[in-house]
Formats: sequence, structure tokens, C-alpha cells
Amino acid sequence: MSTLPVGPEIEQLLTIISRLPGFGPRSARRIALHLLRRREGVMVPLAEALATAAATVAPCEICGNWDSQSPCRLCEDEERDGSVLCVVEDVGDVWALERSGAFKGRYHILGGLISPLDGIGPDDLNFGPLSQRASAGTVREVILALSATVDGQTTAGYVADRLEGLGLTVTRLSHGVPIGGELGHLDEGTLAAALQSRRDFS
Amino acid sequence: MSTLPVGPEIEQLLTIISRLPGFGPRSARRIALHLLRRREGVMVPLAEALATAAATVAPCEICGNWDSQSPCRLCEDEERDGSVLCVVEDVGDVWALERSGAFKGRYHILGGLISPLDGIGPDDLNFGPLSQRASAGTVREVILALSATVDGQTTAGYVADRLEGLGLTVTRLSHGVPIGGELGHLDEGTLAAALQSRRDFS
Ligand SMILES: [Zn+2]
Ligand SMILES: [Zn+2]
Repeated sequence: MSTLPVGPEIEQLLTIISRLPGFGPRSARRIALHLLRRREGVMVPLAEALATAAATVAPCEICGNWDSQSPCRLCEDEERDGSVLCVVEDVGDVWALERSGAFKGRYHILGGLISPLDGIGPDDLNFGPLSQRASAGTVREVILALSATVDGQTTAGYVADRLEGLGLTVTRLSHGVPIGGELGHLDEGTLAAALQSRRDFS
Repeated sequence: MSTLPVGPEIEQLLTIISRLPGFGPRSARRIALHLLRRREGVMVPLAEALATAAATVAPCEICGNWDSQSPCRLCEDEERDGSVLCVVEDVGDVWALERSGAFKGRYHILGGLISPLDGIGPDDLNFGPLSQRASAGTVREVILALSATVDGQTTAGYVADRLEGLGLTVTRLSHGVPIGGELGHLDEGTLAAALQSRRDFS
């Protein structure tokens, strides 16, 4: 990048963009050119949207969701079913579940997964408020919507242990063939799980 | 996008990012999550780099290159050969040529191509300073490094006409097979040009 005679301002911009996921030097140059060509229409509004979101968005004190208000819009939404709590790793999982439209309960965002290899233990995650919420009397079911990975399952086991004795139903997402997924591209573990939990064809 | 319960700040950010080239709603969500997770380390510096570049970078009064100073660093570089002037459409072309390391002369950036279909005429482009520069006495050769498209060739013809009578050598880039390019993927026009301008194999 330092071979471009662009001056420190564009150089700094290229450096930051090229380190974003999915970007490299080439795509950073392309998007920087696009932005510099549309300074007033796109570049300045983008800078302001980034600064505004960075300054105003923070984790919700109840669920850990990101919003400019706390409690967040999900926690304040009276139409949502407070008896079902969906435990997820990350705000990205909340966005994905919300887009599915299939869940109308409340969320609890851990902010990560327990990962002994990465030195991430329960104290690094948002577990405290979870026990309080689950034992407050309104929650009936806790859905563990965590990744089907080693860390995801370690975390799911830990949450299940913590919730034991509260008289709650604890469930997890089913395993199986993704909609639109081709069998030939699936790993054996998924295929085995899909076979074991096969359903009547109707 | 409006189905996400994210509040106006994140919504605005997602809207702007999803309209950038190469982005859609899905990749906008992915990069927004990446940024929100790294607020201090990445998101705020990116906002500042965008704002700084948008505020400081402007076209060079001599050549049209983008820089935070005018004359730009390329025009001020005494090591560059002022007798060769390379005419390009866009600052992106300057960046590409600079990365090639093959050109050590000076540039003139038109800021676009003549395009009758799009209603872009010579007066919309940076032609005025070009004639001044070319006739000032130091320039010996003008290289028309313009796209091998209809608009590129229309523009090249127009520049060549304007420079006529100044006693300059006017050249263009050669056509041919791109380095690493497979013959089977090339269009016939390029193949024909590459055949016509074939060179001794040595
Ligand atoms: Zn909340
Ligand atoms: Zn310049």
C-alpha cells in the first residue's frame, strides 16, 4: 500500500478498510475510490453513521442485545412472550433469529462461548443476569440456541447445569439437513443426526 | 432490513453499507457486527479516517489527482519526468499505474470519459488544464492510457485532436493478451489485436 502516492489520509483509510473481514488491499482501493467519488452523498454519511452508532449503541442491561436504549427495544416489547428465553452467543444470532420470524420470546446474549482453549471461562460471559432472569418466576422454557461446535456444546452444558433445579424446561435447536442443503455436501455428523431424528413423511 | 429490531442508529448504518458496491443486506450485517464488536479499535478509527479523508482530500489544481495538498505529491515530485504526460480517466487508473511501477512521468486525470449516451461532453471533464500543460514546452509525449471501450476511444480521439499542431508525440497503450490471461477467455477483438501486433519470440 505504501507504494501509492496518496498521502497519509487516504493511506490510513486504505489500511483500516483492508483489514476488515472480506477485504484486502485491492477491494480496499476499490471501495475507497467509490467513497472518494461520492464524498457528500456516501462518504460523509457513512462516517457519521459509524460515529453515531459507535457512540450510542451499547449492550442492554437485561439481555445484552445492542441498542441505543437500555432496556433495549426487544426487552421493552410487551408483545413478546416473556415465558420463553432464547440463549444465544452473539447479537448476530439475534438478528438471524429475528429475520426467521420464528421466535417471539425474549433473548439472552452471552457475548461469546466458553472456550478453554482460548482462555474464555464463564466469568468472561454474560451469565450473571441469566440466572436472575431464569429464576424470577416468569420464565418457563430456556432454549439453548448455540452453535453445534465443541465450544457451543460446552457452553450449552454449562448453562443447563446452572439452570438445574429451577423447574424449567431446557431445550436446544434440532440438528438436521439445512433447508436447500444438498446431502452430498453435508458432513457425516449432521447426516447421522438427521437420520436419528427422522420424522414421518407426510 | 426494517424487520431487525436494531433501532435507528444501526439501521442507518446497515442501509448505507448495504448500498456500497459489493455489499448487500447480508454482508452489511456481517461487517456491521464486526465493527460493533470492535468499537474502539476499528469502528471509531474508521469513522475518523473517513471523515478526515472526506474533509481534506481534493483534486489537485494541476493534474486532478486526489490529495490533501495541491499541487499534489505527484506533481511536486521532482524525480518524475515532466516530459511525459499520461492521460487517464480516473484516480483509480493512477493508483493502478503507480502499482505497476512502470511509469515515472506525470499524470493528467480527466475525471471521466466523453460519453454522448450519458450526456457527458468535453466541458464536463478536466480538459482545460491539459492543453495548457501540453503546450507549456516541457511535455514531449502524451500517453493516452484510456479504456479500450467506445467512450475511451472517443475520448482518446478528442484529446489527440486537441493536441494536434503542438508537435507532441501522442501514444496509446498496446492491446494484447493480459499477463496470466487464458486465450479461451479472451474476446475476439483482443485476440485480433494481439495477433496483428505480434512480436518476435525471443
Ligand atoms: Zn434487552
Ligand atoms: Zn497533481
